[in-house]
Amino acid sequence: MDLRSYLEDRKSQVEASLFESVQDDSIPKTLRDAMLYSLEAGGKRIRPILVIAGAEAVGGTAEKVMPVAIALEMIHTFSLIHDDLPAMDDDSLRRGKPTNHKVFGEANAILAGDGLLAEAFYALANSDVVTDAKLLVDVIRDVASATGGRGMTGGQVIDIGSTGRSIDENELTKLHLYKTGTLLKVSVVSGAKLCGAADEELDALARYGENIGLAFQIADDVLDIEGDEELLGKDIGSDEGNFKSTYPAIIGLEESKKKARALVDDALTHISIFGDRAEPLKLLARYIIDRNK
Amino acid sequence: MDLRSYLEDRKSQVEASLFESVQDDSIPKTLRDAMLYSLEAGGKRIRPILVIAGAEAVGGTAEKVMPVAIALEMIHTFSLIHDDLPAMDDDSLRRGKPTNHKVFGEANAILAGDGLLAEAFYALANSDVVTDAKLLVDVIRDVASATGGRGMTGGQVIDIGSTGRSIDENELTKLHLYKTGTLLKVSVVSGAKLCGAADEELDALARYGENIGLAFQIADDVLDIEGDEELLGKDIGSDEGNFKSTYPAIIGLEESKKKARALVDDALTHISIFGDRAEPLKLLARYIIDRNK
Repeated sequence: MDLRSYLEDRKSQVEASLFESVQDDSIPKTLRDAMLYSLEAGGKRIRPILVIAGAEAVGGTAEKVMPVAIALEMIHTFSLIHDDLPAMDDDSLRRGKPTNHKVFGEANAILAGDGLLAEAFYALANSDVVTDAKLLVDVIRDVASATGGRGMTGGQVIDIGSTGRSIDENELTKLHLYKTGTLLKVSVVSGAKLCGAADEELDALARYGENIGLAFQIADDVLDIEGDEELLGKDIGSDEGNFKSTYPAIIGLEESKKKARALVDDALTHISIFGDRAEPLKLLARYIIDRNK
Repeated sequence: MDLRSYLEDRKSQVEASLFESVQDDSIPKTLRDAMLYSLEAGGKRIRPILVIAGAEAVGGTAEKVMPVAIALEMIHTFSLIHDDLPAMDDDSLRRGKPTNHKVFGEANAILAGDGLLAEAFYALANSDVVTDAKLLVDVIRDVASATGGRGMTGGQVIDIGSTGRSIDENELTKLHLYKTGTLLKVSVVSGAKLCGAADEELDALARYGENIGLAFQIADDVLDIEGDEELLGKDIGSDEGNFKSTYPAIIGLEESKKKARALVDDALTHISIFGDRAEPLKLLARYIIDRNK
């Protein structure tokens, strides 16, 4: 299987649905434009592709889980818009383009983020491809939990409270589990859940999701030190400049790389029960720590 | 029926569930405190009480619809936190207390708003009192729609685009339908929908909700001119100071009062089909335009 063509194929499927979802005349034009601007700004679409790959591991298809896939990308995009705000990271560029508030103003950027968060739940609940309402309610609960105080938003608050002071490895791991891990885990699990996966299959996918979520973050910290600025799309060494704690700073660069590899190996063990159907998930796990090569 | 004791009774039921909902140790303490601060800041709890009164009109109970009731109050509270931000209305006081960002800082206030929006959908989907998953998915879709670009968030963007220029009555009505009307309508309808109301009952409640939503806003504009500052809890004449269009400015004060009364009368006609069960809804409609007396 060729990972590159798999990723390109799934990405264009996701983007078609994603861009269409906010093209609704009953949404005021300025807001539509602001939401679409950030949705179209690019990105690897890791979360929706994990939703689809999770579904495929249990015999499902992209079509059946597309509402969940685009909802997770909307939630990710909402978080980027709010992260970039002057009161948060105060970034003027994202993926080489002016950030949302630089183009639409701060008030509209706040509202574009709010709008995308609400649209995510609209996309989930307005779907006619999901037929089992009980499973859908379960997935909506999981996604809401991973987005709010028990997940990403909680992680942002922990991050703000940790910036400028040194924290230990346990605190750093907790921060990342909240900030990115929980939503990545939910991405992997939700697609499979909607396709009727058994409990032990969902458990295996959850373990895989936890491992690659943490590996993803460690790899990010490593890339921030030795990555290629152009490929990474942000300033190298920016974490150091903002006094943010990183894995290399706490446990060393070599130990960080070793830990990321061990987490990926463990992730692969968990999904071995799916056989060939988990080929995309296997390649994605490797891709996550090798993405700068 | 005594409206005052009805309102007090429902309000304390709602507040008990509302405050409990964010008391979860897995939500980081700073975020919990920031969310709770604004939830506890008071308010008439109009939206959750409408949810309950709508349910009661079709023979349902407060207990059966409490998750929807508190979700709508969380969404209302999230919108107030974001509205008060420096980039939006830049308010330092809300209901006589410092606004969220004055207490917790701007970044945490943005995240407290985001967190409450996500918690609203968590409350909806995590409920064990709602047993019909198909109806619940319907209600989640309606609430998401009324919150995002097709409702409140869209209305905020329209409002920002209209501030400082004069608009006509049609534009003003559209603004209010988006900004407050849609969410009030969904409040009245959702509780009844979860209790298995028939289509014609839901239609009647929707018409009632639209009418009182608009009447509420006209009454607000009238109160801003001739209200009692202390009772209203905000500066009298503040709309004029910000160059915001109002009904009295466009159609005159007396015409505005007449219009509000006509909307309420029409609302009452629609709910006459429910007989005595709609007594709370009847009293609430009158209360909305007389709240300063």
